[in-house]
Amino acid sequence: MDYKSSGVDIDAGNETVRRIKGLARSTFTSGVLSEIGSFGGLFRLDPARNPDPILVASADGVGTKLKVAFLANRHDTVGEDLVNHCVNDILVQGARPLFFLDYLATGRLSPAVAEHVVAGIARGCRANGCALLGGETAEMPGFYAEGEYDLAGFIVGAVERERVIDGSTVAPGDVLVGLPSSGLHTNGYSLARRIVFERLALTVDSAVPELGETVGEALLRVHRSYLPAIAPALEEPGLVRALAHVTGGGITDNLPRVLPSGCQAVIDKNAWGVPALFRFLGEAGQVPEEDMYRSFNMGIGLIAACRAADADRLLRTLGPVDPPGPVVIGEIVAGERMVRYR
Amino acid sequence: MDYKSSGVDIDAGNETVRRIKGLARSTFTSGVLSEIGSFGGLFRLDPARNPDPILVASADGVGTKLKVAFLANRHDTVGEDLVNHCVNDILVQGARPLFFLDYLATGRLSPAVAEHVVAGIARGCRANGCALLGGETAEMPGFYAEGEYDLAGFIVGAVERERVIDGSTVAPGDVLVGLPSSGLHTNGYSLARRIVFERLALTVDSAVPELGETVGEALLRVHRSYLPAIAPALEEPGLVRALAHVTGGGITDNLPRVLPSGCQAVIDKNAWGVPALFRFLGEAGQVPEEDMYRSFNMGIGLIAACRAADADRLLRTLGPVDPPGPVVIGEIVAGERMVRYR
Repeated sequence: MDYKSSGVDIDAGNETVRRIKGLARSTFTSGVLSEIGSFGGLFRLDPARNPDPILVASADGVGTKLKVAFLANRHDTVGEDLVNHCVNDILVQGARPLFFLDYLATGRLSPAVAEHVVAGIARGCRANGCALLGGETAEMPGFYAEGEYDLAGFIVGAVERERVIDGSTVAPGDVLVGLPSSGLHTNGYSLARRIVFERLALTVDSAVPELGETVGEALLRVHRSYLPAIAPALEEPGLVRALAHVTGGGITDNLPRVLPSGCQAVIDKNAWGVPALFRFLGEAGQVPEEDMYRSFNMGIGLIAACRAADADRLLRTLGPVDPPGPVVIGEIVAGERMVRYR
Repeated sequence: MDYKSSGVDIDAGNETVRRIKGLARSTFTSGVLSEIGSFGGLFRLDPARNPDPILVASADGVGTKLKVAFLANRHDTVGEDLVNHCVNDILVQGARPLFFLDYLATGRLSPAVAEHVVAGIARGCRANGCALLGGETAEMPGFYAEGEYDLAGFIVGAVERERVIDGSTVAPGDVLVGLPSSGLHTNGYSLARRIVFERLALTVDSAVPELGETVGEALLRVHRSYLPAIAPALEEPGLVRALAHVTGGGITDNLPRVLPSGCQAVIDKNAWGVPALFRFLGEAGQVPEEDMYRSFNMGIGLIAACRAADADRLLRTLGPVDPPGPVVIGEIVAGERMVRYR
């Protein structure tokens, strides 16, 4: 017996490394010191830019959006989903990304599929000024169904100590500004897939008239990175008091995570137009409204809190207001740390 | 339809978070600034300790050692495997760990199993002075077989710029010192499982006379962290010229990763006693010797290179020489960047 006959192909692994080396290198920023293939990736913090840095780190996956990618045989977007998700998770504490690492696990390694996945990761990294510093590609016979894989990402960013955003200054009277999502982002896919592929028996190629596109196009739309929109606002200390990334659990579960005690969020559901995709899923699945707001982002992917007097300035800083642009979606009142809808 | 009926149980997720909060908190070092539940974990670099820090990061998994844990229904050691693997991967560049994040993915979340897994991670983190700063627990219906999961880890450490170990000063005449492994560590499990569970048709509870323990005990022995042994040597600048972590690909593939061009490693296979587990696997599987040294660590989990004149000092610094202690296993000669065995 040898290693290859046990289901692990070291040569396929090496071929994969060869294919992704150039992709990773295309993301390298001035902080990267190591070559690809080192045991650990080396990154130099710039003391001039970050004299008193707080590192902010997050780990995440793509969830069952991957199943849609498998069905569509489209592997070059889930990596961008993952990077943008991670970028948003540290952005909400005021951090800009420094570097990213990925974990790609599969039953039998296809260097071509791995290359597509990493190409998406690299595109996301370049767009966010984030170096793809390393990663692990694991071939695990018997763990994943043929043609399937799992994908996790890990990001590290930095923020100066006095610029950390933690929601502690949020107070009753503050205004909540919502930024539009690009689609489901990476949450709610187990429910969405059940509605679309089981109840409606559609395929990824089915055209949906209400959406003007196919199921696959709608469900694979890439998770938006809010870094470009939010970065200018972070340059104005105190303007943004809290930021919440609307991920698993929806607005209902995520917004309270950044509220101090004694603060309740009141969200006006009519303040923005819920995109057609969410209306379509809710109607087709007859999903109770409460579950909709806890399963999906409902069109709002990031929420910023600011003083009422700063709301106009924040909206201008966030960029163009062409619909669906940033919009005031609610306010902070005194109360239990939770979200109330009206 | 609601979210729970789609196979994702947000409440099980919340229950899991409750169970692991205390475990994570038990690992917190003075650098940790964030509470558990933040979008990103916050870690403050100590400028007094690290005036010019290089961050070193690595991502890894446990591989199919997980399958042995599933068979043995033993979930509290794989986390320690993962942490120690990651600690070693950055240690070889001179870095000490700062923080760790985990990704735990499963088809249906069992809060009890997740708690066991994270307990192992937390134990490993505490032993290495590394904070468990965050993580993601993903419930992905349809991805993993009942009772199975995948586990990935991400580590960030720091090393002062002038203390980075990169192998660039390695030169012919240097001596290679091997540090004993505790078992298979986390590599070669696809081959080992095939030999033990298929060819020999043993179970995890089978006693193996040659080993004096059961299959499960032998195969689940925890991956050793080399941080305690190596840390004192890192305090003496220039003493250690290169460090290689013997992971997938064995000594054959890993040692060349830290050799500069023009340097070849010659390993004396008789310099140390290959532990019984490897001899047992090689004989039972009739594995060609070349494949053994490329699939398994063969009893050597970490290799350090130093000047010949420093070898005795390094051996003393590495600690007790009771067998199987650190031992000279070879040398560097002029030649192609590869390993030659004699």
